[in-house]
Amino acid sequence: MEVFIEPIGRLINEFTKLPGVGRKTAQRYAYKIVNMSEREAREFADAIMNAKQKVRFCKICGNFSEGEVCEICATREPSTICVVKEPKDVVSIEKLHEYKGMYHVLHGVIDPMNGVTPNDIRIKELLERVNGGVKEVIMATNPDVEGEATAMYIAKLLKPLGVRVTRLSRGIPIGSELEYTDEVTLSRALIERKEI
Amino acid sequence: MEVFIEPIGRLINEFTKLPGVGRKTAQRYAYKIVNMSEREAREFADAIMNAKQKVRFCKICGNFSEGEVCEICATREPSTICVVKEPKDVVSIEKLHEYKGMYHVLHGVIDPMNGVTPNDIRIKELLERVNGGVKEVIMATNPDVEGEATAMYIAKLLKPLGVRVTRLSRGIPIGSELEYTDEVTLSRALIERKEI
Repeated sequence: MEVFIEPIGRLINEFTKLPGVGRKTAQRYAYKIVNMSEREAREFADAIMNAKQKVRFCKICGNFSEGEVCEICATREPSTICVVKEPKDVVSIEKLHEYKGMYHVLHGVIDPMNGVTPNDIRIKELLERVNGGVKEVIMATNPDVEGEATAMYIAKLLKPLGVRVTRLSRGIPIGSELEYTDEVTLSRALIERKEI
Repeated sequence: MEVFIEPIGRLINEFTKLPGVGRKTAQRYAYKIVNMSEREAREFADAIMNAKQKVRFCKICGNFSEGEVCEICATREPSTICVVKEPKDVVSIEKLHEYKGMYHVLHGVIDPMNGVTPNDIRIKELLERVNGGVKEVIMATNPDVEGEATAMYIAKLLKPLGVRVTRLSRGIPIGSELEYTDEVTLSRALIERKEI
Protein backbone atom coordinates (compact mmCIF):
# COMPACT_ATOMS: atom_id res chain seq x y z
CA MET A 1 0.00 0.00 0.00
CA GLU A 2 0.97 3.64 -0.34
CA VAL A 3 2.39 5.24 2.78
CA PHE A 4 -0.01 8.18 2.46
CA ILE A 5 -3.68 8.01 1.57
CA GLU A 6 -4.37 9.70 -1.76
CA PRO A 7 -5.78 13.08 -0.63
CA ILE A 8 -2.83 13.64 1.71
CA GLY A 9 -0.27 12.41 -0.81
CA ARG A 10 -1.71 14.78 -3.40
CA LEU A 11 -1.60 17.75 -1.02
CA ILE A 12 2.00 16.91 -0.05
CA ASN A 13 2.92 16.95 -3.74
CA GLU A 14 1.39 20.39 -4.13
CA PHE A 15 3.28 21.78 -1.13
CA THR A 16 6.61 20.51 -2.49
CA LYS A 17 6.09 22.91 -5.41
CA LEU A 18 6.72 25.83 -3.04
CA PRO A 19 10.32 27.11 -2.92
CA GLY A 20 12.54 25.27 -0.46
CA VAL A 21 9.86 22.82 0.66
CA GLY A 22 10.91 19.17 0.80
CA ARG A 23 8.70 16.16 1.48
CA LYS A 24 9.07 16.27 5.28
CA THR A 25 8.05 19.90 5.46
CA ALA A 26 5.26 19.36 2.95
CA GLN A 27 3.98 16.53 5.13
CA ARG A 28 3.86 18.80 8.18
CA TYR A 29 1.99 21.43 6.17
CA ALA A 30 -0.48 18.85 4.87
CA TYR A 31 -1.19 17.57 8.38
CA LYS A 32 -1.80 21.13 9.50
CA ILE A 33 -4.37 21.55 6.74
CA VAL A 34 -6.12 18.31 7.68
CA ASN A 35 -6.28 19.47 11.28
CA MET A 36 -7.77 22.85 10.33
CA SER A 37 -11.49 23.49 10.51
CA GLU A 38 -13.39 23.30 7.23
CA ARG A 39 -13.75 27.09 7.33
CA GLU A 40 -10.03 27.69 7.82
CA ALA A 41 -9.13 25.35 4.97
CA ARG A 42 -11.68 27.10 2.76
CA GLU A 43 -10.15 30.50 3.56
CA PHE A 44 -6.71 29.15 2.72
CA ALA A 45 -7.79 27.75 -0.64
CA ASP A 46 -9.75 30.93 -1.43
CA ALA A 47 -6.74 33.14 -0.66
CA ILE A 48 -4.70 31.17 -3.19
CA MET A 49 -7.25 31.57 -5.97
CA ASN A 50 -7.91 35.19 -5.00
CA ALA A 51 -4.22 36.10 -5.21
CA LYS A 52 -3.81 34.23 -8.49
CA GLN A 53 -6.84 35.87 -10.07
CA LYS A 54 -6.55 39.43 -8.78
CA VAL A 55 -2.82 40.03 -8.93
CA ARG A 56 -1.37 41.19 -12.21
CA PHE A 57 1.62 43.27 -13.21
CA CYS A 58 1.56 47.07 -13.33
CA LYS A 59 1.91 48.06 -16.98
CA ILE A 60 4.30 50.86 -16.05
CA CYS A 61 6.73 49.48 -13.47
CA GLY A 62 6.07 45.72 -13.70
CA ASN A 63 5.40 45.34 -9.97
CA PHE A 64 2.45 43.31 -8.64
CA SER A 65 -0.75 45.30 -8.92
CA GLU A 66 -4.48 44.90 -8.51
CA GLY A 67 -5.28 47.44 -11.22
CA GLU A 68 -3.69 48.20 -14.61
CA VAL A 69 -1.39 50.67 -12.88
CA CYS A 70 -0.10 50.04 -9.36
CA GLU A 71 -0.66 52.41 -6.47
CA ILE A 72 2.97 53.49 -6.44
CA CYS A 73 3.00 54.48 -10.13
CA ALA A 74 -0.35 56.24 -9.67
CA THR A 75 0.74 58.44 -6.78
CA ARG A 76 4.51 58.87 -6.63
CA GLU A 77 6.92 61.52 -7.76
CA PRO A 78 7.95 60.42 -11.30
CA SER A 79 11.40 62.00 -11.65
CA THR A 80 13.24 59.16 -9.88
CA ILE A 81 13.10 55.48 -10.83
CA CYS A 82 14.57 52.74 -8.67
CA VAL A 83 15.43 49.64 -10.75
CA VAL A 84 15.13 46.28 -8.98
CA LYS A 85 15.30 42.65 -9.97
CA GLU A 86 12.06 41.36 -8.46
CA PRO A 87 8.82 42.55 -6.83
CA LYS A 88 10.09 41.44 -3.42
CA ASP A 89 12.88 44.01 -3.71
CA VAL A 90 10.25 46.74 -3.96
CA VAL A 91 8.87 45.50 -0.64
CA SER A 92 12.32 45.68 0.98
CA ILE A 93 12.78 49.29 -0.05
CA GLU A 94 9.20 50.33 0.71
CA LYS A 95 9.59 49.06 4.26
CA LEU A 96 12.20 51.79 4.86
CA HIS A 97 9.53 54.47 4.27
CA GLU A 98 12.29 56.69 2.91
CA TYR A 99 12.12 56.44 -0.83
CA LYS A 100 9.43 58.56 -2.45
CA GLY A 101 10.07 57.84 -6.13
CA MET A 102 8.88 55.17 -8.53
CA TYR A 103 10.19 51.70 -9.33
CA HIS A 104 11.02 49.57 -12.31
CA VAL A 105 10.95 45.80 -11.85
CA LEU A 106 13.21 44.01 -14.33
CA HIS A 107 11.84 40.52 -13.55
CA GLY A 108 15.32 39.05 -13.65
CA VAL A 109 18.92 40.04 -14.29
CA ILE A 110 21.19 39.42 -17.24
CA ASP A 111 22.66 35.94 -16.77
CA PRO A 112 24.09 34.48 -20.01
CA MET A 113 25.14 31.26 -18.24
CA ASN A 114 21.47 30.55 -17.63
CA GLY A 115 20.32 31.89 -20.97
CA VAL A 116 18.95 35.23 -19.73
CA THR A 117 19.83 37.96 -22.23
CA PRO A 118 19.04 41.70 -22.03
CA ASN A 119 15.98 41.04 -24.20
CA ASP A 120 14.52 38.67 -21.60
CA ILE A 121 14.16 41.30 -18.88
CA ARG A 122 12.30 44.61 -18.88
CA ILE A 123 15.14 46.86 -20.10
CA LYS A 124 13.36 48.13 -23.22
CA GLU A 125 10.42 49.25 -21.06
CA LEU A 126 12.83 51.10 -18.78
CA LEU A 127 14.42 52.98 -21.66
CA GLU A 128 10.98 54.03 -22.87
CA ARG A 129 10.11 55.37 -19.44
CA VAL A 130 13.34 57.32 -19.12
CA ASN A 131 12.67 59.15 -22.37
CA GLY A 132 10.39 61.46 -20.38
CA GLY A 133 11.06 63.71 -17.41
CA VAL A 134 13.12 61.24 -15.42
CA LYS A 135 16.10 62.84 -13.66
CA GLU A 136 17.66 59.94 -11.79
CA VAL A 137 17.71 56.16 -12.13
CA ILE A 138 18.89 54.28 -9.03
CA MET A 139 20.27 50.83 -9.86
CA ALA A 140 19.21 48.63 -6.95
CA THR A 141 19.96 45.18 -8.34
CA ASN A 142 21.72 42.80 -5.93
CA PRO A 143 25.48 43.26 -5.36
CA ASP A 144 26.31 39.89 -6.95
CA VAL A 145 27.93 39.15 -10.31
CA GLU A 146 24.70 39.18 -12.34
CA GLY A 147 23.26 42.17 -10.47
CA GLU A 148 26.43 44.21 -10.98
CA ALA A 149 26.68 43.30 -14.65
CA THR A 150 23.04 44.20 -15.23
CA ALA A 151 23.47 47.53 -13.45
CA MET A 152 26.53 48.34 -15.57
CA TYR A 153 24.81 47.32 -18.80
CA ILE A 154 21.75 49.45 -18.11
CA ALA A 155 23.84 52.40 -16.92
CA LYS A 156 25.68 52.37 -20.25
CA LEU A 157 22.39 52.57 -22.13
CA LEU A 158 20.96 55.29 -19.91
CA LYS A 159 23.85 57.74 -19.73
CA PRO A 160 23.55 58.94 -23.36
CA LEU A 161 19.96 59.92 -22.51
CA GLY A 162 21.29 62.54 -20.11
CA VAL A 163 19.90 60.96 -16.97
CA ARG A 164 21.76 60.62 -13.69
CA VAL A 165 22.45 56.95 -12.93
CA THR A 166 23.33 55.93 -9.38
CA ARG A 167 23.94 52.63 -7.59
CA LEU A 168 23.18 51.61 -4.00
CA SER A 169 26.42 51.86 -2.02
CA ARG A 170 28.20 48.65 -1.13
CA GLY A 171 30.36 48.17 1.94
CA ILE A 172 30.52 46.80 5.43
CA PRO A 173 27.02 46.22 6.83
CA ILE A 174 26.13 48.51 9.74
CA GLY A 175 26.69 46.80 13.10
CA SER A 176 29.06 44.14 11.77
CA GLU A 177 32.79 43.86 12.48
CA LEU A 178 35.80 44.10 10.17
CA GLU A 179 36.98 40.71 11.45
CA TYR A 180 33.85 38.98 10.21
CA THR A 181 33.42 40.84 6.96
CA ASP A 182 34.18 38.77 3.86
CA GLU A 183 37.22 39.83 1.84
CA VAL A 184 35.33 40.93 -1.25
CA THR A 185 33.10 43.24 0.75
CA LEU A 186 36.01 44.61 2.75
CA SER A 187 38.10 45.30 -0.32
CA ARG A 188 35.11 47.00 -1.94
CA ALA A 189 34.62 49.13 1.19
CA LEU A 190 38.26 50.18 0.96
CA ILE A 191 38.05 51.06 -2.73
CA GLU A 192 34.84 53.03 -2.23
CA ARG A 193 36.04 54.80 0.94
CA LYS A 194 34.62 58.26 1.47
CA GLU A 195 35.83 61.58 2.86
CA ILE A 196 34.56 62.29 6.36
CA MET B 1 0.21 52.67 1.69
CA GLU B 2 0.44 49.03 2.65
CA VAL B 3 3.66 47.31 1.64
CA PHE B 4 1.70 44.44 0.04
CA ILE B 5 -1.40 44.72 -2.09
CA GLU B 6 -4.39 43.11 -0.40
CA PRO B 7 -4.60 39.75 -2.24
CA ILE B 8 -0.91 39.07 -1.58
CA GLY B 9 -1.08 40.26 2.02
CA ARG B 10 -4.03 37.97 2.63
CA LEU B 11 -2.25 34.96 1.10
CA ILE B 12 0.88 35.70 3.16
CA ASN B 13 -1.28 35.68 6.30
CA GLU B 14 -2.68 32.28 5.37
CA PHE B 15 0.77 30.81 4.77
CA THR B 16 2.00 32.00 8.18
CA LYS B 17 -0.60 29.65 9.71
CA LEU B 18 1.51 26.68 8.57
CA PRO B 19 3.93 25.30 11.16
CA GLY B 20 7.30 27.05 11.23
CA VAL B 21 6.43 29.56 8.51
CA GLY B 22 7.34 33.18 9.24
CA ARG B 23 6.47 36.23 7.16
CA LYS B 24 9.55 36.08 4.93
CA THR B 25 8.91 32.46 3.99
CA ALA B 26 5.19 33.12 3.58
CA GLN B 27 6.07 35.95 1.21
CA ARG B 28 8.21 33.64 -0.92
CA TYR B 29 5.39 31.09 -1.03
CA ALA B 30 2.85 33.76 -1.99
CA TYR B 31 5.04 35.00 -4.83
CA LYS B 32 5.38 31.45 -6.08
CA ILE B 33 1.58 31.12 -6.16
CA VAL B 34 1.23 34.40 -8.06
CA ASN B 35 3.77 33.19 -10.59
CA MET B 36 1.99 29.86 -11.11
CA SER B 37 -0.37 29.34 -14.00
CA GLU B 38 -4.07 29.62 -13.25
CA ARG B 39 -4.36 25.84 -13.63
CA GLU B 40 -1.53 25.13 -11.17
CA ALA B 41 -3.00 27.49 -8.58
CA ARG B 42 -6.39 25.86 -9.03
CA GLU B 43 -4.87 22.40 -8.47
CA PHE B 44 -3.19 23.65 -5.33
CA ALA B 45 -6.37 25.14 -3.89
CA ASP B 46 -8.35 22.03 -4.85
CA ALA B 47 -5.84 19.72 -3.17
CA ILE B 48 -6.33 21.66 0.07
CA MET B 49 -10.11 21.36 0.01
CA ASN B 50 -9.92 17.76 -1.19
CA ALA B 51 -7.66 16.75 1.70
CA LYS B 52 -9.78 18.64 4.22
CA GLN B 53 -13.02 17.09 2.99
CA LYS B 54 -11.96 13.51 2.29
CA VAL B 55 -9.61 12.78 5.16
CA ARG B 56 -11.12 11.56 8.40
CA PHE B 57 -9.95 9.37 11.25
CA CYS B 58 -10.16 5.56 11.19
CA LYS B 59 -12.67 4.55 13.85
CA ILE B 60 -10.45 1.67 14.94
CA CYS B 61 -6.89 2.98 15.06
CA GLY B 62 -7.41 6.75 14.83
CA ASN B 63 -5.06 7.17 11.87
CA PHE B 64 -5.97 9.29 8.85
CA SER B 65 -8.36 7.43 6.59
CA GLU B 66 -10.53 7.95 3.53
CA GLY B 67 -13.14 5.45 4.67
CA GLU B 68 -14.63 4.62 8.10
CA VAL B 69 -11.86 2.06 8.61
CA CYS B 70 -8.37 2.66 7.23
CA GLU B 71 -6.63 0.31 4.83
CA ILE B 72 -4.22 -0.90 7.49
CA CYS B 73 -6.97 -1.89 9.94
CA ALA B 74 -8.90 -3.55 7.10
CA THR B 75 -6.06 -5.76 5.92
CA ARG B 76 -3.44 -6.32 8.61
CA GLU B 77 -2.72 -9.07 11.08
CA PRO B 78 -4.66 -8.02 14.24
CA SER B 79 -2.65 -9.72 17.00
CA THR B 80 -0.06 -6.93 17.26
CA ILE B 81 -0.78 -3.25 17.88
CA CYS B 82 1.87 -0.56 17.63
CA VAL B 83 0.95 2.50 19.74
CA VAL B 84 2.13 5.87 18.43
CA LYS B 85 1.58 9.50 19.32
CA GLU B 86 0.57 10.90 15.92
CA PRO B 87 -0.40 9.85 12.39
CA LYS B 88 3.02 10.92 11.11
CA ASP B 89 4.62 8.25 13.30
CA VAL B 90 2.62 5.61 11.43
CA VAL B 91 4.20 6.90 8.22
CA SER B 92 7.71 6.62 9.72
CA ILE B 93 7.17 2.98 10.63
CA GLU B 94 5.31 2.07 7.43
CA LYS B 95 8.24 3.34 5.40
CA LEU B 96 10.37 0.53 6.84
CA HIS B 97 8.10 -2.06 5.18
CA GLU B 98 8.89 -4.38 8.08
CA TYR B 99 5.99 -4.14 10.46
CA LYS B 100 2.94 -6.17 9.48
CA GLY B 101 0.64 -5.49 12.44
CA MET B 102 -1.88 -2.79 13.23
CA TYR B 103 -1.53 0.64 14.83
CA HIS B 104 -3.16 2.71 17.50
CA VAL B 105 -2.77 6.49 17.23
CA LEU B 106 -3.09 8.20 20.63
CA HIS B 107 -3.35 11.73 19.18
CA GLY B 108 -1.08 13.07 21.89
CA VAL B 109 0.83 11.94 24.95
CA ILE B 110 0.16 12.47 28.65
CA ASP B 111 1.55 15.88 29.52
CA PRO B 112 0.12 17.29 32.77
CA MET B 113 2.19 20.49 32.46
CA ASN B 114 0.20 21.31 29.34
CA GLY B 115 -3.08 19.99 30.69
CA VAL B 116 -3.12 16.72 28.73
CA THR B 117 -4.46 13.95 30.98
CA PRO B 118 -4.89 10.24 30.15
CA ASN B 119 -8.55 10.99 29.35
CA ASP B 120 -7.53 13.42 26.60
CA ILE B 121 -5.78 10.84 24.45
CA ARG B 122 -7.11 7.58 22.97
CA ILE B 123 -6.16 5.23 25.83
CA LYS B 124 -9.70 4.01 26.55
CA GLU B 125 -10.07 3.02 22.89
CA LEU B 126 -6.80 1.08 23.10
CA LEU B 127 -7.92 -0.88 26.16
CA GLU B 128 -11.14 -1.80 24.38
CA ARG B 129 -9.18 -3.11 21.40
CA VAL B 130 -6.82 -5.15 23.53
CA ASN B 131 -9.72 -6.98 25.16
CA GLY B 132 -9.82 -9.19 22.08
CA GLY B 133 -7.19 -11.46 20.55
CA VAL B 134 -4.30 -9.04 20.81
CA LYS B 135 -1.04 -10.74 21.81
CA GLU B 136 1.46 -7.88 21.80
CA VAL B 137 1.31 -4.11 22.16
CA ILE B 138 4.43 -2.25 21.02
CA MET B 139 4.80 1.13 22.70
CA ALA B 140 6.31 3.40 20.05
CA THR B 141 5.86 6.81 21.63
CA ASN B 142 8.87 9.13 21.41
CA PRO B 143 11.79 8.57 23.80
CA ASP B 144 11.22 11.90 25.57
CA VAL B 145 9.81 12.55 29.05
CA GLU B 146 6.14 12.61 28.01
CA GLY B 147 6.52 9.69 25.60
CA GLU B 148 8.22 7.54 28.24
CA ALA B 149 5.66 8.42 30.90
CA THR B 150 2.78 7.65 28.54
CA ALA B 151 4.33 4.30 27.59
CA MET B 152 4.78 3.37 31.26
CA TYR B 153 1.25 4.45 32.14
CA ILE B 154 -0.32 2.43 29.35
CA ALA B 155 1.90 -0.60 30.03
CA LYS B 156 0.64 -0.66 33.62
CA LEU B 157 -2.96 -0.73 32.41
CA LEU B 158 -2.30 -3.41 29.79
CA LYS B 159 -0.28 -5.96 31.75
CA PRO B 160 -3.21 -7.16 33.92
CA LEU B 161 -4.98 -8.01 30.63
CA GLY B 162 -2.37 -10.68 29.98
CA VAL B 163 -0.93 -9.01 26.89
CA ARG B 164 2.76 -8.73 26.11
CA VAL B 165 3.85 -5.07 26.20
CA THR B 166 7.11 -4.05 24.52
CA ARG B 167 8.91 -0.78 23.87
CA LEU B 168 11.12 0.29 20.94
CA SER B 169 14.74 -0.03 22.03
CA ARG B 170 16.65 3.12 22.83
CA GLY B 171 20.37 3.55 22.41
CA ILE B 172 23.08 4.94 20.19
CA PRO B 173 21.81 5.61 16.65
CA ILE B 174 23.34 3.37 13.99
CA GLY B 175 26.21 5.09 12.18
CA SER B 176 26.85 7.68 14.89
CA GLU B 177 29.88 7.86 17.17
CA LEU B 178 30.19 7.56 20.94
CA GLU B 179 31.97 10.90 21.03
CA TYR B 180 28.96 12.71 19.59
CA THR B 181 26.24 10.82 21.44
CA ASP B 182 24.52 12.85 24.14
CA GLU B 183 25.05 11.71 27.72
CA VAL B 184 21.49 10.65 28.39
CA THR B 185 21.42 8.39 25.32
CA LEU B 186 24.84 6.97 26.10
CA SER B 187 23.96 6.22 29.69
CA ARG B 188 20.72 4.58 28.55
CA ALA B 189 22.68 2.50 26.04
CA LEU B 190 24.95 1.34 28.85
CA ILE B 191 22.08 0.45 31.16
CA GLU B 192 20.24 -1.41 28.41
CA ARG B 193 23.36 -3.20 27.13
CA LYS B 194 22.76 -6.62 25.60
CA GLU B 195 24.58 -9.97 25.49
CA ILE B 196 26.29 -10.63 22.17
